Amino acid sequence: MMTHPAPTQASRNNRTMKAAVFAEPGRIVLEEKPIPRVGPRDALLRVTTTTICGTDVHILKGEYPVARGLTIGHEPVGVIAELGEAVSGYEVGQRVLAGAITPCGQCHPCLDGHQAQCGGKAMGGWRLGNTIDGCQAEYVLIPDAMANLAPIPDHLTDEQVLMCPDIMSTGFGGAESGRIRIGDTVAVFAQGPIGLCATVGAKLMGATRIFAVDALPERLAMARSLGADVTINYKERDPVQAILEATDGRGVDVAIEALGTQATFESCLRVLKPGGVLSSLGVYSGKLTLPLDAFAAGLGDHKIITTLCPGGKERMRRLMNVLASTRADLRPLVTHRFTLDRIEEAYDLFASQRDGVLKVAITP
Amino acid sequence: MMTHPAPTQASRNNRTMKAAVFAEPGRIVLEEKPIPRVGPRDALLRVTTTTICGTDVHILKGEYPVARGLTIGHEPVGVIAELGEAVSGYEVGQRVLAGAITPCGQCHPCLDGHQAQCGGKAMGGWRLGNTIDGCQAEYVLIPDAMANLAPIPDHLTDEQVLMCPDIMSTGFGGAESGRIRIGDTVAVFAQGPIGLCATVGAKLMGATRIFAVDALPERLAMARSLGADVTINYKERDPVQAILEATDGRGVDVAIEALGTQATFESCLRVLKPGGVLSSLGVYSGKLTLPLDAFAAGLGDHKIITTLCPGGKERMRRLMNVLASTRADLRPLVTHRFTLDRIEEAYDLFASQRDGVLKVAITP
Amino acid sequence: MMTHPAPTQASRNNRTMKAAVFAEPGRIVLEEKPIPRVGPRDALLRVTTTTICGTDVHILKGEYPVARGLTIGHEPVGVIAELGEAVSGYEVGQRVLAGAITPCGQCHPCLDGHQAQCGGKAMGGWRLGNTIDGCQAEYVLIPDAMANLAPIPDHLTDEQVLMCPDIMSTGFGGAESGRIRIGDTVAVFAQGPIGLCATVGAKLMGATRIFAVDALPERLAMARSLGADVTINYKERDPVQAILEATDGRGVDVAIEALGTQATFESCLRVLKPGGVLSSLGVYSGKLTLPLDAFAAGLGDHKIITTLCPGGKERMRRLMNVLASTRADLRPLVTHRFTLDRIEEAYDLFASQRDGVLKVAITP
Amino acid sequence: MMTHPAPTQASRNNRTMKAAVFAEPGRIVLEEKPIPRVGPRDALLRVTTTTICGTDVHILKGEYPVARGLTIGHEPVGVIAELGEAVSGYEVGQRVLAGAITPCGQCHPCLDGHQAQCGGKAMGGWRLGNTIDGCQAEYVLIPDAMANLAPIPDHLTDEQVLMCPDIMSTGFGGAESGRIRIGDTVAVFAQGPIGLCATVGAKLMGATRIFAVDALPERLAMARSLGADVTINYKERDPVQAILEATDGRGVDVAIEALGTQATFESCLRVLKPGGVLSSLGVYSGKLTLPLDAFAAGLGDHKIITTLCPGGKERMRRLMNVLASTRADLRPLVTHRFTLDRIEEAYDLFASQRDGVLKVAITP
Repeated sequence: MMTHPAPTQASRNNRTMKAAVFAEPGRIVLEEKPIPRVGPRDALLRVTTTTICGTDVHILKGEYPVARGLTIGHEPVGVIAELGEAVSGYEVGQRVLAGAITPCGQCHPCLDGHQAQCGGKAMGGWRLGNTIDGCQAEYVLIPDAMANLAPIPDHLTDEQVLMCPDIMSTGFGGAESGRIRIGDTVAVFAQGPIGLCATVGAKLMGATRIFAVDALPERLAMARSLGADVTINYKERDPVQAILEATDGRGVDVAIEALGTQATFESCLRVLKPGGVLSSLGVYSGKLTLPLDAFAAGLGDHKIITTLCPGGKERMRRLMNVLASTRADLRPLVTHRFTLDRIEEAYDLFASQRDGVLKVAITP
Repeated sequence: MMTHPAPTQASRNNRTMKAAVFAEPGRIVLEEKPIPRVGPRDALLRVTTTTICGTDVHILKGEYPVARGLTIGHEPVGVIAELGEAVSGYEVGQRVLAGAITPCGQCHPCLDGHQAQCGGKAMGGWRLGNTIDGCQAEYVLIPDAMANLAPIPDHLTDEQVLMCPDIMSTGFGGAESGRIRIGDTVAVFAQGPIGLCATVGAKLMGATRIFAVDALPERLAMARSLGADVTINYKERDPVQAILEATDGRGVDVAIEALGTQATFESCLRVLKPGGVLSSLGVYSGKLTLPLDAFAAGLGDHKIITTLCPGGKERMRRLMNVLASTRADLRPLVTHRFTLDRIEEAYDLFASQRDGVLKVAITP
Repeated sequence: MMTHPAPTQASRNNRTMKAAVFAEPGRIVLEEKPIPRVGPRDALLRVTTTTICGTDVHILKGEYPVARGLTIGHEPVGVIAELGEAVSGYEVGQRVLAGAITPCGQCHPCLDGHQAQCGGKAMGGWRLGNTIDGCQAEYVLIPDAMANLAPIPDHLTDEQVLMCPDIMSTGFGGAESGRIRIGDTVAVFAQGPIGLCATVGAKLMGATRIFAVDALPERLAMARSLGADVTINYKERDPVQAILEATDGRGVDVAIEALGTQATFESCLRVLKPGGVLSSLGVYSGKLTLPLDAFAAGLGDHKIITTLCPGGKERMRRLMNVLASTRADLRPLVTHRFTLDRIEEAYDLFASQRDGVLKVAITP
Repeated sequence: MMTHPAPTQASRNNRTMKAAVFAEPGRIVLEEKPIPRVGPRDALLRVTTTTICGTDVHILKGEYPVARGLTIGHEPVGVIAELGEAVSGYEVGQRVLAGAITPCGQCHPCLDGHQAQCGGKAMGGWRLGNTIDGCQAEYVLIPDAMANLAPIPDHLTDEQVLMCPDIMSTGFGGAESGRIRIGDTVAVFAQGPIGLCATVGAKLMGATRIFAVDALPERLAMARSLGADVTINYKERDPVQAILEATDGRGVDVAIEALGTQATFESCLRVLKPGGVLSSLGVYSGKLTLPLDAFAAGLGDHKIITTLCPGGKERMRRLMNVLASTRADLRPLVTHRFTLDRIEEAYDLFASQRDGVLKVAITP
């Protein structure tokens, strides 16, 4: 599978790599950094494809704080370059990906099923490009490799699986946390990459009527092609009113929030039936208020479930199952391609949502 | 069991009864009203014992709007006086109670397990003393009798089962919605009657460390006697800090809100571990804000579950099982007793939380 | 919607109707019987379309005992001819169907979510054509009408919804009880009408690899067209071996039994991963043995879940949602059509599985 | 905590230890074996207390096959003597225990919540005394130490926590898999150590009526003292009939099988309500048949759930929470004490169930 030999550890230790690092608010720049050294439970990946996430844009803008000099990026597809001495079951040269969330699998929360909250700190499982160096680089260290390296079936390309580490896992997680059942009516507010994947996930779980809400016509068109039954451009119609009318006032069984604003969160509650689930994926900033009328003053048996991107290799295996089965094809989400050298350009495009961009593929 | 014959329908139709009705904000008064006529799916109960709920005080104060002239009260214990012609499986003279929530069992939400949201409107299952006449009266009509009349075992007194219709069902519901597991650490904010029952429910489900928070020493003492492991008087200590310290920063698995204020809701979030459940029982007014730091900006895998008092005769049967088993004894919650004639006095005491009052028994 | 006026109660009480009744083992015959009288909680349907179930064949053969003279059939589609006086929310002339299982919604098991076990007796919810007269007749009485009458959307034909009362509800129930998740691998043993619907249900819930097993090539072809990824003719290949090989020895996450034999039940266990779910739909006769090697002597964390057809109008509404959404089209399952007059002929065809028959539509 | 210094790795490598090994059917003997060498993910424990399990007796008798020369035992309490180089978060000298099941936390089934089926082979998580050397020895190697070492609170003695690794985890698991709810009626068939812990677990989860069945009066007395409401000596009364009578024919919500015989399994089904859960803990041998009458021919919505002892350090932490809280006290289960030197004697006593033996404490 590898066409050129992996560099030896010795040679790598003397070498540097290119990496996109957070310099200061407003600046993510490509720098030379040492290739990381591999600890006993780690693996080193040579990154073959990665991408930029909305969260990375928050980091770029200084809205989400990370250490200066940190390599950004949490969606790695690559090839194993080196394995820690305590890692078994893999081999150098193997083609793998890892989730954005890299749980250890062995701490109390992980063993209790809360892998995204690994270690017991909020978002503790999100390490790549957050608390340790990420994968917008030529190489990335994957911690707790045995829990996280997911081999990629040969017949799936890098781009086909590029949504697995975060977008697909998060979006599907929104549908799963909503406990969608066959015959459910679902609303998905915002049809960015994560919202689109939530729409796909809702359909995969058996929702039979899916309302997709956004303001960009091309995103609504994409939503429809991926499974939405009704699309609503909120600049043209009040989505709350439209959904309540279309459901004869009944509301939806599950409302998925995929943006992280007061408006979308509140709209979710307003279209939700009593007893329904508000499945929240967005990253909120500022202030978030529960409208008590829509919340039935706390007496509506509403459930608000937040979900951080599920990670770990079993999750990744299941997501690749979906792609291998052709039940869903997420390739249309990759709208633009850049080499790592041009990543600053890619950030500029992605952050501005120009040219119908959904996701960009970055190839070191 | 009945010591005097049930009045016949004919005789009742010419008679009136005493009932506590909402006159205007600030005034619930005892009036003479006609005894209700029984429809085909209804049952008429002669009320033997009932009580006043915190919600009734909200009604009294005009904070929760109901129609003027409505009979208040949703916690009926009594004897069947008459059965609708479509009702089978019961007989006149039988001693029964009904839940505060009286689901029909046959509408879409009921058949889907959302009985408290009967009919699909928020709180739709709460009819007694809300949308139809309640039970602070000599007689009360129970709608959809077959789904709601729960026979009382002979060896349980009226006062023993008086908490079943609302307080016990709601409080236990808070523990159940929290999905408490053996070995969990739980915090219960507010130890009024519902919070105390949440504490009991948490213990019954296997929580092994229960923090109970309130400001009234007698309520904290009651909490301790009913199963709390640690009591915290929030006037003396910051409960958030105290709980985080006591759990080595880990937080609790489940936090139960049993008051309905921003402060208690927010404290629940602040002591909750990532991945934990905030089980909310309170009736909120004003405004409710989610503190984004404690909410991990939406990425903490938190679950906020609201629960309206579960009703229906099966629920009531299970709650009476608990009392019959002596696993819990809620008689200490009844601190004062009044005849129906003196109900205005009872409201005055109860609303002011004087004299260590927890619940009052009202006997027509 | 009705093109001729409903007969009045008076006129009907003097009239008879045609009904297929169980005469004795081996003989179901068309007879004249009085049109049923409507009790307060009942509805009378004029049957417009119905069908024959595998269970009816068991009845015909005397393998499942019912009272002589009982009208057979539990899959009614029709028009409301009369409503009991305690029934509200419907009107005469409305086009509806009812599930094979007609729960009361108001007994203890119903209120606890066990509607198919209504009343607390095993299979208690199965009344039509079992403990009360069924619907292979011109008219059928639906008990507890308010819990069971499901209005049919205008744009769906009788034949489109004919699978809802039993086949679709049972088959989907098999997938649901299996708790199929996105990315699961599933095996469905037997592809009769119920097995085919289980295959559809598995796909709707997100299974990404479905093995369908049968011996009839036309059923395997139908399975493939409805969503199976791999079909296995057990007369050509050992399905256990084939599935284990295809999954690299891992086995399936969920195995659905849709026939009711030792062989299929046992094969399910043998292809099931440790920790997996055997979802059982079949009606077993004779003897059923758990092969201890495949059952890991009881230590494999296996789950065996049996499911009786879920009923009630909410269930029917959800199933019709699926059809209305075109997520699934079950019309191909109706392979033959007969008038009620020719029902004995229909039984003969159906029982012999001749001519590629899957389901027959019977129109009175 | 340690009163003498831990031997260094070097010194240990030259030393041997005493260990109880399976020699041949009928013979477990104490032998000298080398102290195990520690791999990078392992920990070496100096065993301070352990015990004998019913499964070990099956091994002794040759009914459950293990390799000759294998050290037996899977219930270790001890002190960390050495840590693998990839293990962090622990220190030598720390007092810990490990579960009988030692999941890796990082394979596909572990990450999917099936830790007892670690690696995907049935019972794959059971390694100690099964596929690798166990803990009836002076030292034991704990694989995947980071997932399995559970620190013991100082105030709990070895004997207090000795039931955690297997008996308590398995018995509680039986209650948990039964999904016992507040107000449930539960039957537990067999009151050996695991059945007794199932009884305790049922009570902890809120069962309000627990029937405990056995034939040994002292075990029934113990069951009563630990929480059973009704005890039934099956030599004196038919437990099926007794339970059905006591529940007015309704049956139990959950039946727990804690022995592993056709008789107890079948009795569980016969007392189980339609829709109920048969939670199976026993290790079956020979043949296991489902009585189709009690199984409603597969149409009773019955669930049969098997549970292998849950392991991992989080599970152990939770079980120790129970003991620390004094919600349950399992010390009475330890009826006899032996030094490791006398373990053959202990096997003899335990296997014969003489002298009221429940569990024996073995101290190297």
